[in-house]
Amino acid sequence: MSAPARRIRVDLAYDGTDFAGWQVQPGERTVQGVLAATLARIQGEGAVTVRGAGRTDAGVHAAGQVADALIATRMGDDALLRALASLLPPDARPLALRTVPEGFHSRFDARAKRYVYRLDRTAHGDPFRARFALHHPHPIDRAALDAALVALHGRHDWSSFAGAACDVADRERTVSLASYREPEPGTGEFTFAADGFLNHMVRNLVGTLLEVARGKIAPERIAAILAARDRTLAGPTALARGLCLVHVDYDAATTGERSGLPAVAD
Amino acid sequence: MSAPARRIRVDLAYDGTDFAGWQVQPGERTVQGVLAATLARIQGEGAVTVRGAGRTDAGVHAAGQVADALIATRMGDDALLRALASLLPPDARPLALRTVPEGFHSRFDARAKRYVYRLDRTAHGDPFRARFALHHPHPIDRAALDAALVALHGRHDWSSFAGAACDVADRERTVSLASYREPEPGTGEFTFAADGFLNHMVRNLVGTLLEVARGKIAPERIAAILAARDRTLAGPTALARGLCLVHVDYDAATTGERSGLPAVAD
Repeated sequence: MSAPARRIRVDLAYDGTDFAGWQVQPGERTVQGVLAATLARIQGEGAVTVRGAGRTDAGVHAAGQVADALIATRMGDDALLRALASLLPPDARPLALRTVPEGFHSRFDARAKRYVYRLDRTAHGDPFRARFALHHPHPIDRAALDAALVALHGRHDWSSFAGAACDVADRERTVSLASYREPEPGTGEFTFAADGFLNHMVRNLVGTLLEVARGKIAPERIAAILAARDRTLAGPTALARGLCLVHVDYDAATTGERSGLPAVAD
Repeated sequence: MSAPARRIRVDLAYDGTDFAGWQVQPGERTVQGVLAATLARIQGEGAVTVRGAGRTDAGVHAAGQVADALIATRMGDDALLRALASLLPPDARPLALRTVPEGFHSRFDARAKRYVYRLDRTAHGDPFRARFALHHPHPIDRAALDAALVALHGRHDWSSFAGAACDVADRERTVSLASYREPEPGTGEFTFAADGFLNHMVRNLVGTLLEVARGKIAPERIAAILAARDRTLAGPTALARGLCLVHVDYDAATTGERSGLPAVAD
């Protein structure tokens, strides 16, 4: 007799360097593919379909990705988490796992997401951050950068910052947080929170903001670049390695929680 | 006409994961080998011999390794540092470079070295620290560990903690610092400072201390283990990945400095 199927939510962290991104692609090592294969192995027979909150690009990291899957197993949540932890590779690790209402959808139910983009500002590059930060040893004009960040807040059509692969018609999103700080000497960190992001949006924003910070684009132009809905007006796409999906937010009701989830470490 | 030769000191940091250690070995990628080949390329003709303060094992990292070399070039120190930075790979980066007295010897003149050994204490492993820390999700008995650390201070014969490859006759060294702290939740960090370390000494100390912290070796046994000069009495060798050479200390006179060097970042 086969075990009853239930929907589980899996929170996970990964070093994206050696993955061809989140989404399954034939012949490529992807996080979705590795997670689905591992859950299928635990299930014992049949395939397992995994859905994820954010379809991160090749080389992009996650400290708080959320996935869901329907799995048929008699294992409890704790045993399932331990099995997953023992079978997943060192560069993709489970943080938490629990049963959620069958209707839960990690992507469609996501209310907001938060990404950080990290800079290595040391003169010659820090080898311990080479996989996780963009080496950017140039001066940063904080006043110009802060003015540009302010202009990004609120509801806008983000077509000027959408990648060529972006195929959604509605490009309006609300950015609730766009900030920059330097947590330690030699570092820099952008944080962006929004109800959704277009393909390559954060990397295109960072590429543009770094042009502002170096005096190549005036901060006053940001509003006009947004209004033009023209990708050619914004700056280049920053390298994937600095980007990390740190948190996905849900209404407590959709995950079956009475209260809000504790924030995932970031 | 060939350029005059001078001795330079190079401070460097590396992610040791993809190196077969510091020391040159035929057919292997080593830090010493990469640095020597790069300096020879800058010199233009002839070989360059590189010496290093600490001969780190395969997989061991450095945040403050010190090397020296005799190089014939007309480039000034700043230009030489920029050339080195542009030619070295992302996992081995120069921190500083300057001309030192011709008699300077990075290994023989080293007065003290400091190593840290990092633990990842999260339940299922942090993918961002997989290369740089030992995953050790077990409880740590701080009282027992602290008692064992105290017993390590001072001048001892360290034969019980020397690797099989250790071929030095005089195994007495003075440990001036042996400590453990948890800088952030989910982390652990041992720090050891001494006038010298034997082959595998820090990794054997950590392997033994983790047995103490798990209640497998009583802290009172440390003194007896040291006195016995018998490797079979101590704990196992901890994995290389958690170890990092963070600082090498010199008398200001040997490096031609009027005052002491600023501490290398650690």
